[in-house]
Amino acid sequence: PPSRLPKVGTTIFTVMSALAAERGAVNLGQGFPDFEGDPALVDAVGQAMREGLNQYPPMAGVPALREAVSRKIEALYGRHYDANTEITVTAGATQAIITCILAVVGPGDEVIVLEPNYDSYVPNIELAGGTVVRVALQAGTFRPDFDAIAAAITPRTRAILVNSPHNPSATIWRQADFDRLAEILRPTDALLISDEVYEHMVYDGEPHASASAHPELAARAFVVSSFGKTFHVTGWKIGTVAAPAPLTAEFRKVHQFNVFTVNTPMQHGLARYLANPAPYLELPAFYQRKRDLFRAGLASTRFRLLPSEGSYFQVVDYSAISSLPEGEFCQWLTTEIGVAAIPLSAFYDDGRNQGLARFCYAKKDETLQAALARLAKL
Amino acid sequence: PPSRLPKVGTTIFTVMSALAAERGAVNLGQGFPDFEGDPALVDAVGQAMREGLNQYPPMAGVPALREAVSRKIEALYGRHYDANTEITVTAGATQAIITCILAVVGPGDEVIVLEPNYDSYVPNIELAGGTVVRVALQAGTFRPDFDAIAAAITPRTRAILVNSPHNPSATIWRQADFDRLAEILRPTDALLISDEVYEHMVYDGEPHASASAHPELAARAFVVSSFGKTFHVTGWKIGTVAAPAPLTAEFRKVHQFNVFTVNTPMQHGLARYLANPAPYLELPAFYQRKRDLFRAGLASTRFRLLPSEGSYFQVVDYSAISSLPEGEFCQWLTTEIGVAAIPLSAFYDDGRNQGLARFCYAKKDETLQAALARLAKL
Ligand SMILES: CSCCC(=O)C(=O)O
Ligand SMILES: CSCCC(=O)C(=O)O
Repeated sequence: PPSRLPKVGTTIFTVMSALAAERGAVNLGQGFPDFEGDPALVDAVGQAMREGLNQYPPMAGVPALREAVSRKIEALYGRHYDANTEITVTAGATQAIITCILAVVGPGDEVIVLEPNYDSYVPNIELAGGTVVRVALQAGTFRPDFDAIAAAITPRTRAILVNSPHNPSATIWRQADFDRLAEILRPTDALLISDEVYEHMVYDGEPHASASAHPELAARAFVVSSFGKTFHVTGWKIGTVAAPAPLTAEFRKVHQFNVFTVNTPMQHGLARYLANPAPYLELPAFYQRKRDLFRAGLASTRFRLLPSEGSYFQVVDYSAISSLPEGEFCQWLTTEIGVAAIPLSAFYDDGRNQGLARFCYAKKDETLQAALARLAKL
Repeated sequence: PPSRLPKVGTTIFTVMSALAAERGAVNLGQGFPDFEGDPALVDAVGQAMREGLNQYPPMAGVPALREAVSRKIEALYGRHYDANTEITVTAGATQAIITCILAVVGPGDEVIVLEPNYDSYVPNIELAGGTVVRVALQAGTFRPDFDAIAAAITPRTRAILVNSPHNPSATIWRQADFDRLAEILRPTDALLISDEVYEHMVYDGEPHASASAHPELAARAFVVSSFGKTFHVTGWKIGTVAAPAPLTAEFRKVHQFNVFTVNTPMQHGLARYLANPAPYLELPAFYQRKRDLFRAGLASTRFRLLPSEGSYFQVVDYSAISSLPEGEFCQWLTTEIGVAAIPLSAFYDDGRNQGLARFCYAKKDETLQAALARLAKL
């Protein structure tokens, strides 16, 4: 059959995880923890199933979970979202983002994507019939280039996608960055889709700057969160979208005809778990220690380390080690050195080579140490 | 914001369930069981969570679950689908169907929908940029009108959506119906999307005629199944799509950028549960008894009962009881008589009134009896 997505193959995350498994490599490629979430969370879900909470929940999500999320956002970012009309539970952040896009983007609409970017954004926009407008993050630093963003705005700009903490570069946006963005968007009708799935992984004492904390931007933003990433259960596929009521209404029109609704016992389990005092507050310290352990181990190699301000990723420049292009380097690293990584080229439309690779440090200390032992020879 | 789905409101299922809850009515509206699934299935999922099966599964689904589904289809319908390349696990049947449509339908493509139809089909096609071509099922009998289907085919027909057992009419397609459809599609490139979520609810000794059992159609078909409906856990939101490898490849391109993948512990739990001897084989007898109980109870009322050959729905003609239009009748029935039903008009583009309402009999015997006691006065 003719393809709606002719350029799409299998995601690099799947490819590298398969290769890592086949070669017995330590998998620092695909972003997921190799340790477990809180047994209390698992128990809460099991309890919900045994209580018979197994039929369709309300389309927008279990009210107690939406209320818990509303309280969290208010406590952390100072904005009140109405749990009934402004928060929707999704089957993970990927489903949240495609649903935002299908809800507001159509043929003729342009969507600005800051490159390098997570690999689902572009096919999502294409499926909606929209036009992708790529704006490069600044070379070397991966900071937003606001002049370039301003220059990319046209009367047809329907939305801009922002992702902070950023996958793959591990940079973060600060309050001042959102202020600049607000200035640029002020004279336009463009919406903001803010992918904040790593919101609880920001280091060195910095607060997470959420679009929801910025009143002007929040009024035109979909803010996407992920329980899977926050609570170390990436396979549960559950997240949320917070957006002002008119945007949420459009979101839910598509949501109800995409997945209709999301796993009931997981929602109840999460709602009960979130009644504990803020279980995510320990995350920055937890991951910062892993980041520091991993970076310390790499310090003696010829990898050049880029900053990791947030997320659970570490980008390295391997030019001093190898002149292989990124894809081949990561394959070689996986098969010959026994550590899987993701080539940064996977996050660029043109698959450019910059001699950069991404490691995920959301791993047990033993796993990180095993990887470091193998990488030590480089 | 301008809306991609201007005509869409909240689904009738949500509206009627809310009204039923508010009024303390017996809810025979939205299709879901009010009894529990097998505790062994719940235990299997709990066990998988406690074993630490909580991170991303493979994009297409847990291999053991895909293999179990492949074995089931082969045993029941006689076609072999390769578990690796022809079966994909989805976040429920709704997500399966939109993903089929987004994968193969684009602007300029026509999709034939047999009306009355499930309410997600049309917005799904619209979101893909396709054109909906409605063909009426035969008035009175809800049988397919093959002459009308043949007349609707054009060079731009990209797909036809078929749903058997049929929601809302509770009619089924037989082998001969699929033979006729195959003849019509033979000279075309049109694909078949076969929504078979009620496959294990076919009564009176009839086999379920699956598109997967028809070699000629199966070669161009996506066949959609639902674990939620089969195992009485509609809130788990997990289903599958079986399709030949080239169609599955296109399906997965969209799937990986829609939900990426589906709840890991639920998949493992289902895979282990399916290792038991065919837990779905008892379903027809189980639901046929409920159907018969419900129909027997209605026999003394002035409702005229249409056949219920499959699914867990019963359509009634209430013209001898009330001249209210369907929407108002169902509201009156919910608020004044205390039993919720769904107006058939909700399944028609023009919201036509035929004096028909749909009950769901997937309920405890006590629930059905309570509803019948209230309906007895009619
Ligand atoms: C959805 S699979 C990939 C996980 C991830 O977000 C990443 O590795 O970048
Ligand atoms: C997805 S909610 C509605 C359940 C259902 O399929 C129906 O009632 O027709």
